[in-house]
Parts: sequence; C-alpha cells; structure tokens
Amino acid sequence: MTIAYYKILSSPQVRPYLFQARFGLEREGHRVDAVGHLSGLNHPAALGSRNFHPYLQTDFSETQLEAITPVFEDSKHALQFMEALHDVMIRSLEQGELLWSQSMPPALPENESDIRLANLEKKEDVLYREGLAEKYGKRKQMVSGIHYNFEFGKDLLQAMWKQQQMVDFQTFKSEIYMKLSRQYLRYMWLITYCLGGSPRANAGFFTDKAEKPKEPVRSIRNSKFGYRNTSDIFVSYRNLEQYYEDLHTYVKTGALSEMKEFYSAVRLRGGKRAEELLDVGVQYVEFRNFDLNPFVRVGMDEDTARFVHLFALYLIYKEEEEAPEAAQRLGYEINDAVALENSLEKTAYFNEGKLFFAQMRTFAQNLDFSKDDLALIDKFAQMLEKPETTMAGQMELAFRQNKTFALDLSRQYRQQSYKRPFQLAGFTHLELSTQNLLFDAIQKGLKVEVLDEHDQMVALSYKSHREIIEKGNMTSKDSMVAYAVMENKVVTKKLLNRVHLNTPQGQEFSDLETAQAAFPLFETTSIVVKPKSTNYGLGISIFKQPATQEQFYKALEIAFQEDKEVLVERFVSGTEYRFFVLDGKTRAVLRRDAAHVIGDGVSTISQLVAQKNENPLRGHNHRFPLEKIQITATEKLMLDVQGYTEQSIPVKDVKVNLRENSNVSTGGDSIDVTDEMPEIYKNIAEKAAEALQVKITGVDILIEDLNDSLGEKYSIIEANFNPAMLFHLYPLKGKGRRVTMDVLQFLFPEIFA
Amino acid sequence: MTIAYYKILSSPQVRPYLFQARFGLEREGHRVDAVGHLSGLNHPAALGSRNFHPYLQTDFSETQLEAITPVFEDSKHALQFMEALHDVMIRSLEQGELLWSQSMPPALPENESDIRLANLEKKEDVLYREGLAEKYGKRKQMVSGIHYNFEFGKDLLQAMWKQQQMVDFQTFKSEIYMKLSRQYLRYMWLITYCLGGSPRANAGFFTDKAEKPKEPVRSIRNSKFGYRNTSDIFVSYRNLEQYYEDLHTYVKTGALSEMKEFYSAVRLRGGKRAEELLDVGVQYVEFRNFDLNPFVRVGMDEDTARFVHLFALYLIYKEEEEAPEAAQRLGYEINDAVALENSLEKTAYFNEGKLFFAQMRTFAQNLDFSKDDLALIDKFAQMLEKPETTMAGQMELAFRQNKTFALDLSRQYRQQSYKRPFQLAGFTHLELSTQNLLFDAIQKGLKVEVLDEHDQMVALSYKSHREIIEKGNMTSKDSMVAYAVMENKVVTKKLLNRVHLNTPQGQEFSDLETAQAAFPLFETTSIVVKPKSTNYGLGISIFKQPATQEQFYKALEIAFQEDKEVLVERFVSGTEYRFFVLDGKTRAVLRRDAAHVIGDGVSTISQLVAQKNENPLRGHNHRFPLEKIQITATEKLMLDVQGYTEQSIPVKDVKVNLRENSNVSTGGDSIDVTDEMPEIYKNIAEKAAEALQVKITGVDILIEDLNDSLGEKYSIIEANFNPAMLFHLYPLKGKGRRVTMDVLQFLFPEIFA
Repeated sequence: MTIAYYKILSSPQVRPYLFQARFGLEREGHRVDAVGHLSGLNHPAALGSRNFHPYLQTDFSETQLEAITPVFEDSKHALQFMEALHDVMIRSLEQGELLWSQSMPPALPENESDIRLANLEKKEDVLYREGLAEKYGKRKQMVSGIHYNFEFGKDLLQAMWKQQQMVDFQTFKSEIYMKLSRQYLRYMWLITYCLGGSPRANAGFFTDKAEKPKEPVRSIRNSKFGYRNTSDIFVSYRNLEQYYEDLHTYVKTGALSEMKEFYSAVRLRGGKRAEELLDVGVQYVEFRNFDLNPFVRVGMDEDTARFVHLFALYLIYKEEEEAPEAAQRLGYEINDAVALENSLEKTAYFNEGKLFFAQMRTFAQNLDFSKDDLALIDKFAQMLEKPETTMAGQMELAFRQNKTFALDLSRQYRQQSYKRPFQLAGFTHLELSTQNLLFDAIQKGLKVEVLDEHDQMVALSYKSHREIIEKGNMTSKDSMVAYAVMENKVVTKKLLNRVHLNTPQGQEFSDLETAQAAFPLFETTSIVVKPKSTNYGLGISIFKQPATQEQFYKALEIAFQEDKEVLVERFVSGTEYRFFVLDGKTRAVLRRDAAHVIGDGVSTISQLVAQKNENPLRGHNHRFPLEKIQITATEKLMLDVQGYTEQSIPVKDVKVNLRENSNVSTGGDSIDVTDEMPEIYKNIAEKAAEALQVKITGVDILIEDLNDSLGEKYSIIEANFNPAMLFHLYPLKGKGRRVTMDVLQFLFPEIFA
Repeated sequence: MTIAYYKILSSPQVRPYLFQARFGLEREGHRVDAVGHLSGLNHPAALGSRNFHPYLQTDFSETQLEAITPVFEDSKHALQFMEALHDVMIRSLEQGELLWSQSMPPALPENESDIRLANLEKKEDVLYREGLAEKYGKRKQMVSGIHYNFEFGKDLLQAMWKQQQMVDFQTFKSEIYMKLSRQYLRYMWLITYCLGGSPRANAGFFTDKAEKPKEPVRSIRNSKFGYRNTSDIFVSYRNLEQYYEDLHTYVKTGALSEMKEFYSAVRLRGGKRAEELLDVGVQYVEFRNFDLNPFVRVGMDEDTARFVHLFALYLIYKEEEEAPEAAQRLGYEINDAVALENSLEKTAYFNEGKLFFAQMRTFAQNLDFSKDDLALIDKFAQMLEKPETTMAGQMELAFRQNKTFALDLSRQYRQQSYKRPFQLAGFTHLELSTQNLLFDAIQKGLKVEVLDEHDQMVALSYKSHREIIEKGNMTSKDSMVAYAVMENKVVTKKLLNRVHLNTPQGQEFSDLETAQAAFPLFETTSIVVKPKSTNYGLGISIFKQPATQEQFYKALEIAFQEDKEVLVERFVSGTEYRFFVLDGKTRAVLRRDAAHVIGDGVSTISQLVAQKNENPLRGHNHRFPLEKIQITATEKLMLDVQGYTEQSIPVKDVKVNLRENSNVSTGGDSIDVTDEMPEIYKNIAEKAAEALQVKITGVDILIEDLNDSLGEKYSIIEANFNPAMLFHLYPLKGKGRRVTMDVLQFLFPEIFA
C-alpha cells in the first residue's frame, strides 16, 4: 500500500484536524524512605483498593507506584491530571516517605529476596510477577519510566482516509499506526539521545561489576541493560498481521508467557486484551521508552509531551526505508549504541540527527506549524550540538554538583505537594470544595471527570454507578424541592416550626415602602434585616440595639438590592454555629466569628483590616480557606452603628466588628467546635435537616449558652443547600473535618465497605 | 366566675389580637339532575374515595355532597377554599348534573324508600344513617345548610386570660366558649331573621299537608319542622360539666344514639371525638344554624362570614341574663317563632333586635372597629326595618318572579364553574399549572396547603405522606443535580451524546469578542444563537439562511443579555416537538408553532399581531393557556431577516414568522400530537430523560420527518426541568392531556391504587 502522506497531511480537508489527537500517561515511581531506601511500608492505606483503582496501581514491586491518567484531547491536560495524581500519591504517603524522582531505582538491597513483589490480591497478578522475577531478575524490573499513549484524532483519521480511499478505514488506520511504529523504532535513538534519563545506576543494580557500563551514559534503561526481552525475541512491524503472527508464535512456544510480556518501545494497542488486536485493529500506540525527567515532579514536562506529538506527525509523513525489518533492526542497533554513549559528549549519529531535524523543521514550516512548535523543534535539534542540554547531560551535571540530587528533588516534590494542601494540582481553576472532593475521589479510586468547569460540575463513577456533583455537595441525594425549600426562608421556618424547632420571629416584606412604614413595629427591639433568599450573608444587617429610622431604611435598601422580598426578624442574641449535617448526622460544627479587628491604639480600622488580610490563609473568591475582609456599604453601616469610621483609631485591645453576620465568606474567622458541641444541639440540627427532607445541609444555629443543658435557648437561622466545606476541612483553629470524604462515602458506600 | 369582659376586650394588651380567630366551613348540597330532581347517579367517580377524602364527603343521602374546608385565619380564605371546592365538586359531576342551590331539598320522591342513603363503605356509617332515617324520617334529613366553625385566636385567648388570672387557662377558655354558646342560643333568632333561607318547602317535604306552615316563612330549617332532636332533649349550656353530663345521660339512656346526634345550633368541639370534650376543654364551636344563601355559589357570602365573627365578639362582651337555662329556653322559643314568621313582614321581636344592634354598634365603636365593619353591622341592623332585604325576603321576591329561580341559579353556578376551566377559583393568584395541580389534588382527596404563593410552593399530603411541590412539577422525585444538569446545556449534550442521542453540534462562548471573532466558522451554515442556560426561549435567534455578520453580532448581543455564556449551534431543520416525560414514560407530545401571522393583504404586521392577540385564550404571564405575541428586539430581528418591518403589509395568505423559536411562552401556538407521534421518538425522549436521570422533564426534539421510520433525523434541543403543563392540558388544537394528574399519581401511587 503506497500512501502519499505529504499530499494527505497538507490537504485543506485534513489541515483543520492535523493536531487532533488523544493522550494518556502512565508513570512508575518508587516509594522510598527519608534517606532514599526502598520503603519498607506497604502500599498506602489511604488509597482505595488496588482491585479497582483506575489511576493508582502498583507495578512490579510493592514500592513501585504506578500513576495512570485517563485519556485527554490535549497532552497538557494529561500532564495536569498527572499533577493531580502526584498530589494525591504523595499526600497519601506515610510521614517520611518520598516518591523517588528517577528512573533508575534507589540503592537496592543486597539480597534480591528483600525486594518485595507487589502484594496484590489476584493470584494471577502475583504469579505473573513471580515469573518475571525468575526470568529477568528482580533488579531490572525495578527500573521505572513513563509511558505515553498516543491516538490520532477520529476526524483526522477520517479526513486522511477520505484523501486516499484505497482500503477500508480499519485497514488504513492500522497501517498508519504500523508506519508510525516502524518509524518510531527506526528513530527512537533521538528520544534516547535527547530524553535519556538514566545515566548512572545506584548501588545494587549491577551485581556483576564487570558488566557495568562506563558511566555516565545516556540511558541505562533504554540500553541492553534495561528492562527488555531476551535477545532472541524479534517481532516484525512490517504489517499488523506479521506483528500479531510473530507475537502469537512466541507465546505458543513459551518464549513469552503472554503477549503483554513483549517489551517494545512501541506497543500496539487494540481491544482490552492484546489478543483482540487483530480483530479490532490498532486503536492507539504506547510509547514506552521515556525515562523519568527528575527535574519535574511528574516525570515529564509539557515541552516533551508536545514534542512527541510533533515527532509522531513527522514520522508518518517521512518516507520510509525500503526493507522494514532491516530498518527496524538498524533502529535497535543505533539506539543501543546511543544509549550507552557518554551523556556529555556528542553522539556518533550526529549527522543523521541533523538531517532528521532539518527535514522535520521543513515539514513543520510547510504545514504552517506555530512559532512555538517550530521553536520546540529547534530546542530539541540544538541538543545535538549541546549534549549538556540533553536530559542525561543535565543529570550528570547535577550529579557532579550534588551526589544526592535525586533524593533532594524527591524531598522537594513532597514539600511542593504540601505547600497548599487545600488545593489539588491540575484542578486549581475549580472551586476549592470541588478540588478537595476530587482529591478524595481520586484517592479512593473513583473515576473523575469535570463535566463543566463554570458550574463546578463533576462526574464520579465506580463501575456502572455514576454520580454527578455540582459545587462539591449538590448531589442526586437531595431533591429539587429540598433545594427550593432551603432557598425560601419563610417556608423553611414554617416547616421547622411544625416540628417545634425554634426560628426567629419576624415579618416578610415585598416592597420598600410597606417595609419602611413598619418601622414602629421594630422601634424598640433588636432586629435582623435580610433578603428572603440569598447566600453568603449578602445584604444582611443586624441591629443588636434598636435601629434608628435612618439605619432601618438604609438596611432595608441594602437588603432589597439582593432580593425582591425582605425579612425583618427579632434578633436572638448568642453565638452562631454552623452544623454540617449529612445523611441525618452532624459531621462537623464550626463557630464563625464575624469579621472584626482588634485595636492596637495606633492603627486606623483601615490599616488593621489590611494587616489582618495579610494572613496567607485569606484570599478571594473562595479560593482560600478564609476570605479577605472587604469594606463595603454593609461594613460602613456597621462601623457607623458603633460610632466609627474607617479612619477611626480604636483603643488597644478593643474589638471592632465589621460585620454582624459571621459568614466566613464576608471575612469571618472559622473555629472547629465539633467535639465541644453538646449532643442536644447536634440533634436539633439533625432534626432540622429531617424536617426539610434534606440530606446535605449546613444549618446555622444561634445558641445563647452552650452550657444550657435544656437546649431551649437557640434559634435556627437558616439551612443552606450547598454548605461550604472548606472551612470544616481547614479551620483557622481546631481540628479539620474531612466532610468531602463523608460526601463520597454517602454517595459510594460500596467502595467504603 | 365573673369576668369583666369589657375591661378585658378593651385592654391595650388584648386589642392588637381582637380579631385573631380561625374559621372553617362545611357546606351540604344535593346533586340534582337537569330538571332539578335528586340525581339518580352515584357519588362522582372522579372524586377520590370517601374513605379518606378530607374535603368532599357525603352527608345523609347519596346525593348530598358535603364540602369541608380546612381551618384558616381569615374567614375570606375559608370562603375562597370553599370556592375551590365548588369548582372541583361541580366539574366532577356528570354531564347534566347540578349542585342544588338551596337549603330545602328539591322535590322529593313520593316513596321515601326512593331516597338513597349514602352508599358508604364503613358499616357503622351506614348503620348510623339507617338509625336516623328510622327515628326522624328521611325527608327531614335531606335539608342542607352550612356550618361555621369558629375558634378564638391563641394569642387573643392568652391575652384575655392574662387580664383576669382567676382560673387556669383551659377553664377560662372553656368558659369563654360556654358564654359564647349561651349567648348565641339566646340571640340566634337574629341569624334566623336576617339569614334564614328556607321560606318554602318543595314538593314532597311535607307529607302531611295539615302540618305545613303558611309559607313564605323565614326558615323552615330553623323552625320546629327542621332537622332537630325530639322535644324532650334539653342540654344545658350552664357550664361545660353540665353540658357534658346532660349529653352523657341522653346517650346512656338511649335517647341519643351517640353524642354527635345532638343537633344544637351550637356544638362545642374539643378533641376528635365528642367524648374527649371534658378532658381537652372546648377548642372551638360549630355554628350550625346557617341556611344556604342561594344567591352565591358556595352558600355563604363574605359579609355574612365577617358578620358572624363580629357577632361572636359582641356576644362574649354582652352581659348575660341571670338564669342560664331560662335564657336558653327563651332563645329557643323566640327563634322558633321568628323562623315561622312571614318572610316579608317585620318580626314580632323588632324592639329586642333594635336594642341589640344599637348596643352592638356602640361596642364596635368603642373598640374602634373599622368603618367597613360598622357599615356591616348597620347593614344587618337595617334588615329589621326592611324584611324584604333579609335572605328569606329576597328569596320570596325571587320566587314570585320565577318559580324555578333555585334551579336556574344551580344551572348558572355550573356555567360559572366551567367558564375558565383552566383556573381554580380561590387560587387564581397562583400560576395556572399550580391551580390545575391543586384542582386534581383536591379532586382526588389529597390535603393541600399553599406554603408560599410567591414561589408557587404547595404541600400535598395523604396520611403521613407529605410532598412539597414547586411550580406544579418540581418535586422530591427529581434531584438537585438533575436540575443543575438540565440548566446546563453543555453538560446535557455531553450526557445525551454518551448514550448516542443526537444533539445539535455547536460551540460555546463566554465573551462577546471571541464569539464575534468566530463568525467565519458559521458564515456558510444555518445556525442557532442562544444563551447557555435560560428558559422560555428568551434571547434565542435562529438563522435558517446563514446570518450576515451584522445579524450574527446582533444575535450574540441579545443572547449575552440573557447569560454569561452563549452557544452557537448548527441549525437542524425540521419541526420541534415537546415531549412531556414523567417517570420514564412520554405522557404528552405537543407541536408548537412559532409565533406568526398570516397576511390578509390589508393589515400591517402590527395590526395582524393585535388581531391574533384578541383570542381569549391568549393572555400574559402564563395565566392563560396561550401567551400574547409581543414585538421585542428578537421579533424585530426576525422580521428584518425576512425583509419586513412592523409596518409591512404581508401579501394575503403569506405566513410571516415573528419568532423562530416555537415556545408557547413567546406567542407560539400549541397542538397536541400525542397519538400521532411514532413510538420511536417517544422512546428517544424517554431515553434522554433516563440519561439525564430526571423523572419529570420536557424534552424538545427537532424532527425532520415524522414518517422517517428509522428515527435518525432528529436532534434533541434541550430538556427542561420545570416543563409547562398547561399547554398539554389545554392545547389550542387536539386532545388535552391531564399531566397534572400524572404528576399526582407519580407522587401518591397509593391513592390511585
């Protein structure tokens, strides 16, 4: 089959889809202890079972974690997900444990039997590993890498196919992947040259000192000392049938235990099992020759991920040598040689490399690749001239500076993972509650997918059980009408009063004039003026001392800006607590102190606010556990009530409230009091949730005196349908409560069984 | 016990609560046939079972419907609910059946055995009626009336009690009701005089002609010929203990079969059973002496309901005569006499009446009753001078004009009940979908309560099973997250595409500039520009011919006014249908024709729109089955696309579209096509609902050709979470589908079993 690849790739029907592709990554890496020895601990207990975990598995040995991303349409997204997996993996390690940053294993125990095989539950998985240990030795199996799964876009393949129409689509598609694979094997030495990342072995890898190559090399892992099949195994990539036939024969004769034991730099992937390949055709390819890049936490950087994509495109364009098997053998030969070259010296294949990159650049220019892509090709091309800029070169330079640079990097990545423990790398564009939920979901082994970033809508699934969750805890367990009830403070009160729960007494107004006219009713009492349905405490004014008419009017105006209906309620004194109730049980209780400053006798209120806002836990838009205090009309009104302006200088140690409502979202402080809260009030919150027929809610209760054992002097202020979780997870003071995990356990009891 | 009632009632602590009270009404009325004979049909099958129906029961005979309102804090609300019950009762009658407008039964059959007792399921209910028939004769039991349940407000009673503090609260409360009852019995003749409404008996009531009084009288029902106990029964109202003791004795001796057989004009009510009265004290009283007012459909007007309240207040104030039993007997005596006076003549007790009203007016003035209330007292007082303005007087005058005026009124009330069959009297301030749902709920015997008018939130219940419903079909059966999914068109599409359902292909934009820049992508195709999440078709523009840049920009602006995110989708041609899917099954399908006019060659588009809007089915704000067409920017743009302005005169018979979206809410027409729609598309709608995990939804599907049996050329436009029901119930053309009843059946399968 002769396909005019250039014509095809440059056709106007194909060009719009040229970069359409799908990517997935698999990264292996060892757990090590604080001094860089293989960890003696078992697979992290915090992670969901290896029986089903879709993302976090164990490779050959018990210490060898494997992180697997789903498939994405952009390699950056695969890397972002890999970042998330690293946050989860590393934060799931025991204290002192690290994730080893290099492909070459850390110093190995003298006695090979001290290397523990992965302690998996399935018998066949254990037997397979025992077979490998027997055949290849355990030490080689300890080398780690990163696999790059690559699939051409559906529209791209269709468009390309329509340009030739000589064979049916499946045959065409398989042939595209066969060519890609042949060419990849022929030119993979360029990857080994540029991206080889195993220049030196650590103690215990080479047991036979005589065998050990002269270090630094470029890639022990990609050399004959790496993890590969015995030299008698040769599988032809001439065409799919031949490939399958060869593999099949090796399995039949017992040279390979099963097809997946074939360790090529390119593995053809079809159906779920290797055996289905011939029936379904090639669906995608797995490039397996990438050493870990120790300079980035996830083992591969964005430039590399993009370069491999461009490399693949060029490879299917580039004309092939005539005899496929000969070319394949040549590719192996050059790669083997380059792998063991000195990492700080130029390669013997410099000229072939120069020519390759020059032609690749021309190809890229002709197809109008972006400037960034052209620069990327240049960056890799330049490595031919400057071996010290190759990955192996850089590693060797780092090694000469610091013999333990790999361990130091591992430590650094652990610190990085804990720098903002309330975030999940790769998902920082989402709200924190959703980030935390996703963290827990990934940790426990649920499949996660962001359905809509704007609405914070994610899908979680386990087997055929799928749950969609909006904003961290709006789930299928709560009804549309429970939502509507909680949105409606009047109905909420009605339902609570019916089960004899206390709520503030008050009156509802739907126009400003009537509300203003009602001033005499409230002239002598403490009151709260608030919009009927809103969250985050917006538009709420509280008057512990009876308001003046002017203050009352102003408060009404503010409230009417938020809603068409406004409530004026009797103010109940006491402290407000937030009860996080889930599935009938109070999971966390928080006290929130209203935004305030404490005078120092020198600074103005403005300045005190600015100082308080410097706390690194405070930020904006709910992206931090606490919000910065802002001075809006509501704060100004509250200052006015107390006789202050922003420029007043409060006396030392005097507390000046800036809000009367204590929502964290308006600058309040958060203090966990779950353990201290008497059962009686937890029961009240639970009874409220039951009366409202709601499964997940945040119940705000004003309690006059926690020590009042009768539990009578309280008032339920409201029940919130999408209660904030972050301040329970990361309170300013007190113990954090992992309510996101409670949500997951509620939704997926089967994985917590 | 001497209580200073005037002091109590006028105290500043009591005055704010003076009118606080609770009211409930029970109206009896016969089903008659078209010519005014007792209906030969059974209790309406459309009504829920009499075993549990809280509002619609049967009294003595099978034809005697009984309508019972819940308790309200305003007598107007009780009357409004009674109006609703009448809409339901009358629309549940078979064709030709009427609800008899008078207290006196229509012409009765010669043979008493032809009067059918209520055919109830419970044996004891039948036995009780058989006993009554035996004892009093069936004919007397056929007289109907309206009972007025009255309870003083809790705060009022408390405030009154605090003014005296001589006895405990329950004793005080019972004494208040005992005094009210004694006084009521003493002065009930005034009610009989003013509101007596049974001046003449119809054929068959008096079997013994000699016995028949000289008609017209004021109230046969309240005379000795009415429905009352044998003359040897006298129960004292001296105090609660005596009352109970007397009753108890009559039951023990068999003079009464049970306590409820005591037919006083005032019945004291305590617990559920009369027997509990002594334990719980008097909770409220039931005034039973009201004849039906034939001039209003529900048998009592607002003035009367209010007057009785004022009357009751005055009675507890008014000083009592010394000997209670003597006063009680005197009251009976005067009443018996007044009942049989000539309805067009003054009463013999004119002077007592004059004095009573004069004193009542003074009382009312001293307590600052409103002008309206004073005028109401005057209105009743003046009846003493003008007997022709009493109810019996008016009835007699009407009778002299037209012997069949009672039947004519019954006919008129049936017509009134069908005038706007899409409304429910008493609830017309709610949305039509909620009105229709409440109609069905009342019909089937669910308890109904409006929780919040503004949010259209109602509670329905059967036994301990309560469901809250917002806007007609947002229920506990659908989840918060299903709501969020349907709100999000992008996620909706994702989920539909995953189960291989067709949706329009398109692109999402979150800012105007980027969207404008994408114009070249859509330059050559038919497109729809629409806000990502909005309902009612607001902000949607459709271009069947590719839009010009200017049109595209304008459409984007309109869409961005409705939402922060806008979708531009490939336009799929075809006809749009709305599938109402409930619990996995398509219940109704509607075709909606976009707002349009048909030219007449003379009128401008403006004029044609005005003509179309004259259709009485069209109104505003979803209060009619169809909406009036409005000319907004969207319509103007659509006219512009077709080369029209509002002032253009379209050629005769040419159709001019004013909207491209076919929502009824933007002036479209509605045509039911449930029966014509091929199963394959109904299945598609059901599959969509399943994919979105939603129980109640309106799925909009564009179908290119209904006859395409493959069912492949369609596109699901959106799924709506609060689908309109009205246009299925009352389509412009085709058969109405009672989807509100489907909703009830889904929520309360137990009452449909």
